[in-house]
Amino acid sequence: MADKKVEAITSMEDFAQWYTDVVVKSDLTGYTSVKGFMVLKPAGYAIWELIQRQLDDRFKATGVENVYLPMLIPEGLLQKEKDHVEGFAPEVAWVTHGGLTELQEKLCVRPTSETLFCDFYQKDITSYRDLPKVYNQWCSVVRWEKETRPFLRSREFLWQEGHTAHATAEEAQERTIQMLNVYADFCEEVLAIPVIKGQKSEKEKFAGAVATYTIEALMHDGKALQSGTSHNFGDGFAKAFGVQYTDKENHLQYVHQTSWGVTTRLIGAIIMVHGDDNGLKLPPRVAPTQVMIVPIQQKKEGVLEKAEELRERLSKVSRVKVDDTDKSPGFKFAECEMRGIPLRVEIGPRDIENNQCVVVRRDTGEKISVNLDDLETTVTELLETIQKDMLEAARAHRDSHTYVAKNWDEFVDTVNNKPGFIKAMWCGETECEENIKAETGATTRCMPFEQENLGETCVCCGKPAKKMVYFGRAY
Amino acid sequence: MADKKVEAITSMEDFAQWYTDVVVKSDLTGYTSVKGFMVLKPAGYAIWELIQRQLDDRFKATGVENVYLPMLIPEGLLQKEKDHVEGFAPEVAWVTHGGLTELQEKLCVRPTSETLFCDFYQKDITSYRDLPKVYNQWCSVVRWEKETRPFLRSREFLWQEGHTAHATAEEAQERTIQMLNVYADFCEEVLAIPVIKGQKSEKEKFAGAVATYTIEALMHDGKALQSGTSHNFGDGFAKAFGVQYTDKENHLQYVHQTSWGVTTRLIGAIIMVHGDDNGLKLPPRVAPTQVMIVPIQQKKEGVLEKAEELRERLSKVSRVKVDDTDKSPGFKFAECEMRGIPLRVEIGPRDIENNQCVVVRRDTGEKISVNLDDLETTVTELLETIQKDMLEAARAHRDSHTYVAKNWDEFVDTVNNKPGFIKAMWCGETECEENIKAETGATTRCMPFEQENLGETCVCCGKPAKKMVYFGRAY
Repeated sequence: MADKKVEAITSMEDFAQWYTDVVVKSDLTGYTSVKGFMVLKPAGYAIWELIQRQLDDRFKATGVENVYLPMLIPEGLLQKEKDHVEGFAPEVAWVTHGGLTELQEKLCVRPTSETLFCDFYQKDITSYRDLPKVYNQWCSVVRWEKETRPFLRSREFLWQEGHTAHATAEEAQERTIQMLNVYADFCEEVLAIPVIKGQKSEKEKFAGAVATYTIEALMHDGKALQSGTSHNFGDGFAKAFGVQYTDKENHLQYVHQTSWGVTTRLIGAIIMVHGDDNGLKLPPRVAPTQVMIVPIQQKKEGVLEKAEELRERLSKVSRVKVDDTDKSPGFKFAECEMRGIPLRVEIGPRDIENNQCVVVRRDTGEKISVNLDDLETTVTELLETIQKDMLEAARAHRDSHTYVAKNWDEFVDTVNNKPGFIKAMWCGETECEENIKAETGATTRCMPFEQENLGETCVCCGKPAKKMVYFGRAY
Repeated sequence: MADKKVEAITSMEDFAQWYTDVVVKSDLTGYTSVKGFMVLKPAGYAIWELIQRQLDDRFKATGVENVYLPMLIPEGLLQKEKDHVEGFAPEVAWVTHGGLTELQEKLCVRPTSETLFCDFYQKDITSYRDLPKVYNQWCSVVRWEKETRPFLRSREFLWQEGHTAHATAEEAQERTIQMLNVYADFCEEVLAIPVIKGQKSEKEKFAGAVATYTIEALMHDGKALQSGTSHNFGDGFAKAFGVQYTDKENHLQYVHQTSWGVTTRLIGAIIMVHGDDNGLKLPPRVAPTQVMIVPIQQKKEGVLEKAEELRERLSKVSRVKVDDTDKSPGFKFAECEMRGIPLRVEIGPRDIENNQCVVVRRDTGEKISVNLDDLETTVTELLETIQKDMLEAARAHRDSHTYVAKNWDEFVDTVNNKPGFIKAMWCGETECEENIKAETGATTRCMPFEQENLGETCVCCGKPAKKMVYFGRAY
């Protein structure tokens, strides 16, 4: 509403409340009577559209094709792969009635679509000529979570799920890593979020996968967020579903499969990596509005016209709007900040007289006097600079909150006193992982591709170490 | 598969079988074990992506913002508007269990989202300053149909549903017609499908609407297809859900609402309006591949290189691919035709020698010798010409299959012997509508905005006529 004040949000010191405040007051989500579900309002959905468009372009550049499969999965299909059904059955929503009649076989709302893709591939693939299949779908999925938080954990969320089938194990592994790299590059280049790439432990891997790879990001409060995963299924699903092809020598072979996905959780990551006490802070590449022009003394002759002229000019180099509502400039400034708009342009009578305007950066608060003749160039450069600087700021925060623990005491002290990633050596046993979690609340985030040797023994049990692991408390 | 022949499809004389053949053999849809649901394969989904992108741009140009609401609707919410629940309850899928526990209140998978938008607006709208809300969502919906056909009637389909809230009845009515016009223009300009714009009868209108408007298209077999609808709800839903705002005089008022949608059914329309005995025929603006380059004698030196060079050049003006598989040229030609690719470019050793190529139009079969220096210009012009000519061909077919019936005998004779639209006068009574349907199978398609006076009496009962109506047998 135009007449309500931009209310102060909770300080980041109470991070959970701050997060809720930002999500609501920056108008990303709305309320609904459907418990555990969320509404994506225009400001929130527009971020998802920008994520979707740019990620989809990157997918297609690697040969991905989009498809759409049913949203409901017959119980029998879900049960074909043992680990998979055990992983998902406890958290799916079941459709038992169609219209007025009870169904002979109940159907679940897809929590993920491995089983449907296998069923489809089983029918669609016969020869090596049909391979590889590199398909993806954009859709929503349902998982019956008990506790929910907007973007982070919700009974329904939007995502993409890639599902591929290959002739060889090598090709499947290559695609698994290729897509993880697409995610990592996208997070850094578009969302300005640096990530750690690595492999999940046996305990943390996806139900039915041979190996799960992940990108892990560090939030402002020092907690970790799993931001995207890529799974190599080997031929496990293919064997369960009979997905076979005849090779060039006319022998029947099982395909090798992968799947990979990111979700609207990425919007949660943007909020928690970049936000500050004034609200949301959007990297320019995912900002639905990159520049907001705020007219000063807008009732004076020529001000609104000038603002509109600048909007017209800037629309050629950015996503730009004019705030010509009857709110006060101070209110508009606060609202721009709350909503995370990267650049604010202030233009008033005196500016017009001097052929200049004031440009304010959301990320640093810096105010810059700009000659109007240079406006397009300056705005273009500033948006690029902000994008780069936000990534660097996030990286600096991540690096300064990444610790090394060489023994158990150091580990416990770090978890308790220094929120962030903890690098430590691990023996590879699930038992140690579970002990660490039970004692400290920290979990293995990943075994990073970039391994370091921090010692010879497991930080927990003291037995010989096999891997350097990133630990952290996680969302 | 590369080694299977392009099998002949059934002649259009058996239109139903022809349709099924085209859908499957042009690789638009695939099979699934989920009864009544369909798989959109890459060739089919890419058409939807082009529809979505271009329609979304047109929406946004009128101020529409995209949002996302939950896919599940609590029973209590669905039941708030009496007509609406009666219309939809018999055909929804019910979720009764979440995870391992039975739900206290069952939820249906959205068949449409009026109730959710009302629930959301009730919470989100308080003042006249919050209006209008012009929201849309792209999603899938589920309706438990007994008989299904790909794209035309399916238990799940993709669509967009716009839902708006306005301060006044006039504004709601304007938006209702504005969006119908967006659909009509889109169908003509992008899908090359001419449509009749008009209002649905009381009997045929949407459950809960004050008035439903429709665009009706004529298929090749003379049957009508409802291709998009736009509803004015008045304040009926607002009263049922308590969606109110305070106006400038600080009085509480109910909002006036609209909704409007098109679905993947449009792909069915494209197939049935434009297709022929050789398969699909795609208008260039919704053709995922607009130009297929087929190398002739591709093993000869320089042929594939030249084909790739042409692809590179044409990629600047079109969506273009090279078919360099080991199939024969004749097979490739047939496949291009089956898949409806608007232009085929043939390039072989002799063409290269003469600095030319052969360009073949899918819509007319015309072969044109083109100097390679003029290729981009010619292809650009031809794609525009094809787009225009396909619309004209469809319009000519529609007009030549639109008949006038001035009395009952003429009406019955036309329905039985001349498949197409029938224009006739109607008294406005539901009873006559029902009699006509029972006797002939024809239904009222719409009362067109462009009324003509074809006589003074109802074609069925002979009482004074109120409206000129388009009748037809429909999908």
